[in-house]
Amino acid sequence: MNNTIEFYFDFSSPYGYIASTQIDALANRFDRTVVWRPFLVGASFKLTGRKPLLEVPLVREYMAHDIERFARLLEIPFTLPDRFPIAAITASRGFYWLEEQDAELARSFAKRVYHAYFAKNLDITSKEELAELATSLRVDRDQWIAAVQSQSIKDRFREENDRALERGIFGSPFIIIDDEAFWGADRLPQVEQWLSRGGW
Amino acid sequence: MNNTIEFYFDFSSPYGYIASTQIDALANRFDRTVVWRPFLVGASFKLTGRKPLLEVPLVREYMAHDIERFARLLEIPFTLPDRFPIAAITASRGFYWLEEQDAELARSFAKRVYHAYFAKNLDITSKEELAELATSLRVDRDQWIAAVQSQSIKDRFREENDRALERGIFGSPFIIIDDEAFWGADRLPQVEQWLSRGGW
Repeated sequence: MNNTIEFYFDFSSPYGYIASTQIDALANRFDRTVVWRPFLVGASFKLTGRKPLLEVPLVREYMAHDIERFARLLEIPFTLPDRFPIAAITASRGFYWLEEQDAELARSFAKRVYHAYFAKNLDITSKEELAELATSLRVDRDQWIAAVQSQSIKDRFREENDRALERGIFGSPFIIIDDEAFWGADRLPQVEQWLSRGGW
Repeated sequence: MNNTIEFYFDFSSPYGYIASTQIDALANRFDRTVVWRPFLVGASFKLTGRKPLLEVPLVREYMAHDIERFARLLEIPFTLPDRFPIAAITASRGFYWLEEQDAELARSFAKRVYHAYFAKNLDITSKEELAELATSLRVDRDQWIAAVQSQSIKDRFREENDRALERGIFGSPFIIIDDEAFWGADRLPQVEQWLSRGGW
């Protein structure tokens, strides 16, 4: 048993955003550290033949309301973005490039990206908007812009996605602790129980 | 605002079973009473083009484990039945027939049906098994057997299902409080927050 918690999320996922506001504090209470892992959940939808629930009639209306209520009960800001869903490719590539230098910096970037998208309705598919967020963390703008377009970071992100699929990760958020998988922001109370009991 | 909580569930739904073990105690803490409403969730799957998650590759394996873990964390017995899923038509009809006489009796019957299916692996599509459960509650066996085959109870259950569909109920369990809908056993903590705050 290692001491980390893997936190898989898609930057386009509202429940991923919700979990992202809770996971570090939760882990800290049990002396765990969180490894953040952005990926694109869309590939698993193809594999399982599912559709995002926000595209399913009846469920969609419920879900939009559920996310809003969920955020309100946790007292975190939330607005369903005008552009939704999106393929958060550049944001994810930017994350992994930053992580190669500094995991803490990458995590701060991820939090700003989520906040920009789900609290401030900014377009996080825009390289320019994302570069703003990176520079607000004192990252060099030109270097960041070049990095997210480099072949090496494209390859890196593809590998991360392949690895997520191989591991059977089919939703966002998806939290792995001691080989135990928890799917959904609504599983955070069970994550907490798991950590406090040290397993079953 | 009335004082009831509507609890929609399918007898074939493991998460419905999980919620059924919690909902009355939760409601009691806030001086609410629960109106139990068995229905068949399958009709809404047709309408929304979804499949039960336990039939989706990848998700299925996760889900089977999730249900087991969920039950274990709540310390309730659970085994995925050999015959699963099933169309719990007779059990539901039997419930509504009992409810016409005594809502408390019907609720006890529902709990025994769920327990028989998910804790004891009994076949709850069998009229005979169900009659056993009814007679254990001092219901007349012959009367019960006749009732679940009567046209009036068939009509009654069809109406309940139509009504659930009309109300946009697409999952099990589905809990309605003050016109607010909560889908899933994992929403029970939010139901509790809702009740304790008296709304938003």
